[in-house]
Amino acid sequence: MIAAVSGGSKDPQAGGGDGREPITAAAVAAQVGGVLVGDGSIEVRGIAPLDRAGPNELSFLSHLRYGQWFATSRAGVVLISPELAELAGTPSTRIVVAKPVDAMVALLARFHRKEPRAQGVHSSAVIANDVRLGEGVTIDPFVVIGEGVVIGDGSWISAHAMIGAGSVLGRDVRVHSTAVVYPFTELGDRVTLHAGARVGREGFGFVPQANGVVRIPHAGRCILEHDVEVGANSCIDRGSVDDTIIGAGTKIDNLVQIAHNVRVGRGCFLASQAGVAGSTRIGDGVQIGGQVGIGGHVTIGAKANLAGGAGVIGNVPAGETWSGYPARAHRDHLRASAAIARLAKIVRPLEQLVSKPFSSSDGESRANSRADSRADSAPDESGT
Amino acid sequence: MIAAVSGGSKDPQAGGGDGREPITAAAVAAQVGGVLVGDGSIEVRGIAPLDRAGPNELSFLSHLRYGQWFATSRAGVVLISPELAELAGTPSTRIVVAKPVDAMVALLARFHRKEPRAQGVHSSAVIANDVRLGEGVTIDPFVVIGEGVVIGDGSWISAHAMIGAGSVLGRDVRVHSTAVVYPFTELGDRVTLHAGARVGREGFGFVPQANGVVRIPHAGRCILEHDVEVGANSCIDRGSVDDTIIGAGTKIDNLVQIAHNVRVGRGCFLASQAGVAGSTRIGDGVQIGGQVGIGGHVTIGAKANLAGGAGVIGNVPAGETWSGYPARAHRDHLRASAAIARLAKIVRPLEQLVSKPFSSSDGESRANSRADSRADSAPDESGT
Amino acid sequence: MIAAVSGGSKDPQAGGGDGREPITAAAVAAQVGGVLVGDGSIEVRGIAPLDRAGPNELSFLSHLRYGQWFATSRAGVVLISPELAELAGTPSTRIVVAKPVDAMVALLARFHRKEPRAQGVHSSAVIANDVRLGEGVTIDPFVVIGEGVVIGDGSWISAHAMIGAGSVLGRDVRVHSTAVVYPFTELGDRVTLHAGARVGREGFGFVPQANGVVRIPHAGRCILEHDVEVGANSCIDRGSVDDTIIGAGTKIDNLVQIAHNVRVGRGCFLASQAGVAGSTRIGDGVQIGGQVGIGGHVTIGAKANLAGGAGVIGNVPAGETWSGYPARAHRDHLRASAAIARLAKIVRPLEQLVSKPFSSSDGESRANSRADSRADSAPDESGT
Repeated sequence: MIAAVSGGSKDPQAGGGDGREPITAAAVAAQVGGVLVGDGSIEVRGIAPLDRAGPNELSFLSHLRYGQWFATSRAGVVLISPELAELAGTPSTRIVVAKPVDAMVALLARFHRKEPRAQGVHSSAVIANDVRLGEGVTIDPFVVIGEGVVIGDGSWISAHAMIGAGSVLGRDVRVHSTAVVYPFTELGDRVTLHAGARVGREGFGFVPQANGVVRIPHAGRCILEHDVEVGANSCIDRGSVDDTIIGAGTKIDNLVQIAHNVRVGRGCFLASQAGVAGSTRIGDGVQIGGQVGIGGHVTIGAKANLAGGAGVIGNVPAGETWSGYPARAHRDHLRASAAIARLAKIVRPLEQLVSKPFSSSDGESRANSRADSRADSAPDESGT
Repeated sequence: MIAAVSGGSKDPQAGGGDGREPITAAAVAAQVGGVLVGDGSIEVRGIAPLDRAGPNELSFLSHLRYGQWFATSRAGVVLISPELAELAGTPSTRIVVAKPVDAMVALLARFHRKEPRAQGVHSSAVIANDVRLGEGVTIDPFVVIGEGVVIGDGSWISAHAMIGAGSVLGRDVRVHSTAVVYPFTELGDRVTLHAGARVGREGFGFVPQANGVVRIPHAGRCILEHDVEVGANSCIDRGSVDDTIIGAGTKIDNLVQIAHNVRVGRGCFLASQAGVAGSTRIGDGVQIGGQVGIGGHVTIGAKANLAGGAGVIGNVPAGETWSGYPARAHRDHLRASAAIARLAKIVRPLEQLVSKPFSSSDGESRANSRADSRADSAPDESGT
Repeated sequence: MIAAVSGGSKDPQAGGGDGREPITAAAVAAQVGGVLVGDGSIEVRGIAPLDRAGPNELSFLSHLRYGQWFATSRAGVVLISPELAELAGTPSTRIVVAKPVDAMVALLARFHRKEPRAQGVHSSAVIANDVRLGEGVTIDPFVVIGEGVVIGDGSWISAHAMIGAGSVLGRDVRVHSTAVVYPFTELGDRVTLHAGARVGREGFGFVPQANGVVRIPHAGRCILEHDVEVGANSCIDRGSVDDTIIGAGTKIDNLVQIAHNVRVGRGCFLASQAGVAGSTRIGDGVQIGGQVGIGGHVTIGAKANLAGGAGVIGNVPAGETWSGYPARAHRDHLRASAAIARLAKIVRPLEQLVSKPFSSSDGESRANSRADSRADSAPDESGT
């Protein structure tokens, strides 16, 4: 029997940071090139946001917006920007540094425990005879690698991943556990596939036949260029006639769907649960929010920005921010939303204005319409 | 060759219930503490809703709303509430019981076939040397367990699951096939992860660098407290600076996304395909409908209720029901929806009202506006 | 070291078609029964859309809409319909055929590289003693098959798939890598489950108890009839009291959720990220767009069409097209969208019309309202 296993978050107030070798405030200041104010001997054992940090945790303040949290924070040490260095607040040990956020990000690596990595090919892996593995490749237990696969130097394929026949992977590729690379897929250097990512599946295309439908053979490829990251359980289908291509440096979050023949540009970000329908073209540097849906055969211009939840059914010009469903320019969407809220309060009088003839002497009916307007404030439409 | 394999649903009219040892109506009545009316010798072999149940199946009626189904149901036996016990309907064998739904739920376990469970650790599993397994733990084929993992008594890890290094699992945890627990994740007692769940992935956070972007190291933890359930293919990322925490007893459906640094309270329900962006705080007892999207850095008050499909971009007060996109109080959303439908019928006359000067003698123009209003009923906006 | 591994899409302009044995234009014409115009000796090595095809690639033109692409296409050979055969355009070698799209689909199989298939049962698979496997079944590495499973002739179960105890699979079923068939699930003939599909999970149903909630035992079945296809990472839960049934020939895309007790008819299409809540009934031939959400306990009539992103909260009549959130008849939704856009431009004057008494001599106030209307064009509501 095990005496003590986790009871979940026994200490839910503790902040993040699971690499627990302490470092002094003075050492932190030295590492980030900051100016130490206060007690340099305080031991930092973790990191946390201002409202959750404790006496042995490091936090940061980079904007007056969070000043209220700083005022009462229990953080032992705070990275703080020069213009806020004198701000009133409980944390007495401060490290003044030009860019507290960058400094914190640099420090995160120190508090970040790395996953241990084995060397070489685990004996349980099933690897076809003609596979070519580069130097320093790690193949974890139960990995399956199909005929003719090529994997570049330094790549790491985790447990239960499947690399289908004929696929080509670049250098320093990271395929996490249970990810599936369908046959004949191409991954550039430093591509990351998180757990459960599915790339290269034949797309969702059918043609009617005498007795039902048949699948369209998908002869197009699925290509992920250098430095692409695909989140957990996200899916990218291969092309039918055209290829599906994800441009270099594009980052894709969890549970995202990219259909056949789609072309995504370079340096894009697709947040979780976004979906892109078939044959759509997305330019470079496009930012796509969570749960955005983009219809098929549309074009999204470079550096466009699609707000979370937007439903895009037409082309979006380069550089514009769109939102709403159906999506339109964000400014138009905001105006429409505001208009609805305001008009909802005066529906009944507006209906009366257009339905009743009235004259300059028709004071009574107009007075009624005002009364109706107020009555309209009650949720009498709730049944519609 | 196999003579007969499944042809799909050969008998699509058959109801559910796959545990097929029959039980008499009298025995059912005894088990639920109900009063038997009619033939107690009828054999019950399955359960089904009223409209689909057959002569050897048990159904239930708890509300007059379903009286029409009861009137012609072929169900052999019906659990029925006292106030409906005399209702006209074909089922002649009735078991009168105070709470038919509760009685049915209690009976479901009888008709529910349990998945067989092996004992001990399967010889194919790959388990690091320093792993600590509690008593009565089941480890199924091809499971991989990393260095330093602790698994509490009675837990069951199914085929192809991966438990990353340094993770700590409580007692009676159930990890289904192909689920991935990323390294350094903490699961409380009785946590369930369904097939393909991904917990503890490093979140979707990047910082710009000279040549592209780099991932923010995620030093925060991912903690699922006691009795949390995570549906199939759902994803919960670990924190960057803060932790990601799912409160005790919270139930998460399939294909849900929870981003880094999110805190979900206790006893919440998140329906399928909901998504929560980074650093958002969700109070206790919050109910989140299917496909709800919640933006980053917002706060959802305790016991709030977010209707399916809602797109939440701001804070939601405790106890309120919100809906729509962008979400607002449900009452306001309903009123706005009704207002749009009503105003859509009078757009043209309203436009004319504000665009044309008119006088008390301007009967003609107003008559025209009425005609326009009717013409507006044709879908002439369909091209917009 | 490997000299050359993939650099992602080194030639991003190259079209699809990864089966690279060349075929002459004359041979293509013969195969599709078309009339060759131009040089029959051109070698076709791949296929691509008009705007991306090169001199050794085959493309197609079936509609004047794409005439602009045809005008300057570099495609070596083009399949073209009789009425467009004389259209001005750079491609000089044309194959005139009645239905270019059908001809292209027929040719796709030629350019489509098939995944290699092993024979028999891989030695690493873990198969319970009483499993019945039909003739010609392929079981790939690390597959786990539970007690009492029956698998029909010709089926192919890929690496890391799990077939739970008591499940019955028909003939020529294809289960891709890491898919999970929960225990006691029934799949008809020619069913396909893509990577990461989860079928037969117990649904998301709980009942309150003294200290928290408990899961409702799900005694209903999960049945996929003949020729059903389930996309990557899609989830179909089993029933609680009723069964969950997917009708014959229905095709389901990636990341789709189907909850407990749902009945989907025959020949339906569900696009990616659609979700169907519990106990809903969907008729035959229904088409469901991407990210559509359908609430619980509603009925969708046969051949209804739900546009992408629709949020359906009530019954939809047979044959109708619905869209929007909340969804309504597409015509009504379009009209409402247009109405909002038009009314947003005149909110202020409309408010003034109902808030101010006015007379036939009130020319000034009305003039002001016009001015306000113009001012309203500025996005002054953007803060709301």
